[in-house]
Amino acid sequence: MLDKDAHSHHISQQFNTELDAVKTHMMEMGGLVEKQVSDAVFSILNADSGMAETVKERDKLINAMEVSVDDECARILARRQPAASDLRLVIAISKAVNDLERIGDEAGKIATQALALAEAGEPSKGSVEIRMIGEHVGRMVHDALDAFARLDVDKALEVAREDKLVDAEYGTAMRSVMTYMMEDPRSISSMLNVLWSLRSLERVGDHARNIAEHVIYLVKGKNVRHVGLTELAKHVEQ
Amino acid sequence: MLDKDAHSHHISQQFNTELDAVKTHMMEMGGLVEKQVSDAVFSILNADSGMAETVKERDKLINAMEVSVDDECARILARRQPAASDLRLVIAISKAVNDLERIGDEAGKIATQALALAEAGEPSKGSVEIRMIGEHVGRMVHDALDAFARLDVDKALEVAREDKLVDAEYGTAMRSVMTYMMEDPRSISSMLNVLWSLRSLERVGDHARNIAEHVIYLVKGKNVRHVGLTELAKHVEQ
Repeated sequence: MLDKDAHSHHISQQFNTELDAVKTHMMEMGGLVEKQVSDAVFSILNADSGMAETVKERDKLINAMEVSVDDECARILARRQPAASDLRLVIAISKAVNDLERIGDEAGKIATQALALAEAGEPSKGSVEIRMIGEHVGRMVHDALDAFARLDVDKALEVAREDKLVDAEYGTAMRSVMTYMMEDPRSISSMLNVLWSLRSLERVGDHARNIAEHVIYLVKGKNVRHVGLTELAKHVEQ
Repeated sequence: MLDKDAHSHHISQQFNTELDAVKTHMMEMGGLVEKQVSDAVFSILNADSGMAETVKERDKLINAMEVSVDDECARILARRQPAASDLRLVIAISKAVNDLERIGDEAGKIATQALALAEAGEPSKGSVEIRMIGEHVGRMVHDALDAFARLDVDKALEVAREDKLVDAEYGTAMRSVMTYMMEDPRSISSMLNVLWSLRSLERVGDHARNIAEHVIYLVKGKNVRHVGLTELAKHVEQ
């Protein structure tokens, strides 16, 4: 799967079709998860309870997609006993759908906070922070999936770098939230909704980075979990 | 690996040794992760900065263990091309070490909150809740690992059930934390440390449940992610 020629090594054309199919299913799931994140952020910024309910409902579909792709991976491992880059592809897909499912969970949690905030009906401080970090991590998820589709390790490295920036933005946002709470203790309840939403967005960034790491594993054959950015860059250059 | 007789089916004694080794390495990692959770809880309850630092430092070792076991799993898949219950064992171990690593992360986060609280030097409300939920999820991690070691699906189901109780305890604790904040806005900063610690403990419970689900997958051959408790019980009975 690393390039078109690799396909010719497979004895079975059917096997190629299976590998293409599982990758396509993962990318479809990825597209839906991307939409979940942006819809969840929209629902909280616009106090749109209807949209928030839709996001929560759609999370079940994403859970089902994870189980389905994961089972597909296990079947390929059992029947085809793939080796080398095909094996890495199956392992990377299996790990990536797990991260996608967790991103979906975080989108669902943001939708829950959106419902609570919409019910309280107060215009809440913290929207600026949610919008900024929301857009940032949304872009990261998109880029991580793009890197996976194109086997683009440079783009994957970029996603890992962006995650550092998100962490810094998140730290700043948290300090603002704490200040708002102290200035106006009556806002504590709604600021906690904002706090959990920001937290979920920060987690989305972490999972986008994980997906980027799976791309590097897939292309370079090297497990880069828990490796710092400098060393990550070295693996990509090699 | 499901029972001793299954071993005799393997052409290679070396293969049995490899499967036993990877399972042992996972269990070793599990033992250390269990200790991390209880040490992290101890550090926050006793304002023990030294212990908190130790927990944070030891998390690196846990990360390294995850990468090592995960690589072992990939090597077995590549070289041995396991089938049936052996394949499920390798898949389950690979997923379980991922959950163990995340439990380790949460222990590290609790240690970070412990350091912040110890520095602030105030005796903090919320200790009762941290102690109770901490002991509860610590037991769940222990039982989930035990269920894995013994392939005990009943015990695994019990862990999944406990997770529901932890979620309820967590909801109650969160409401208390919010009340403390509103009663005394000067405590907001330290109560946020308590809040993040409780959140981490709740996540530990989620990961223990995940490990329990991997046990059910391993023994029953059925992917039970995102399945409710009632249906989970049915799979176990089958």
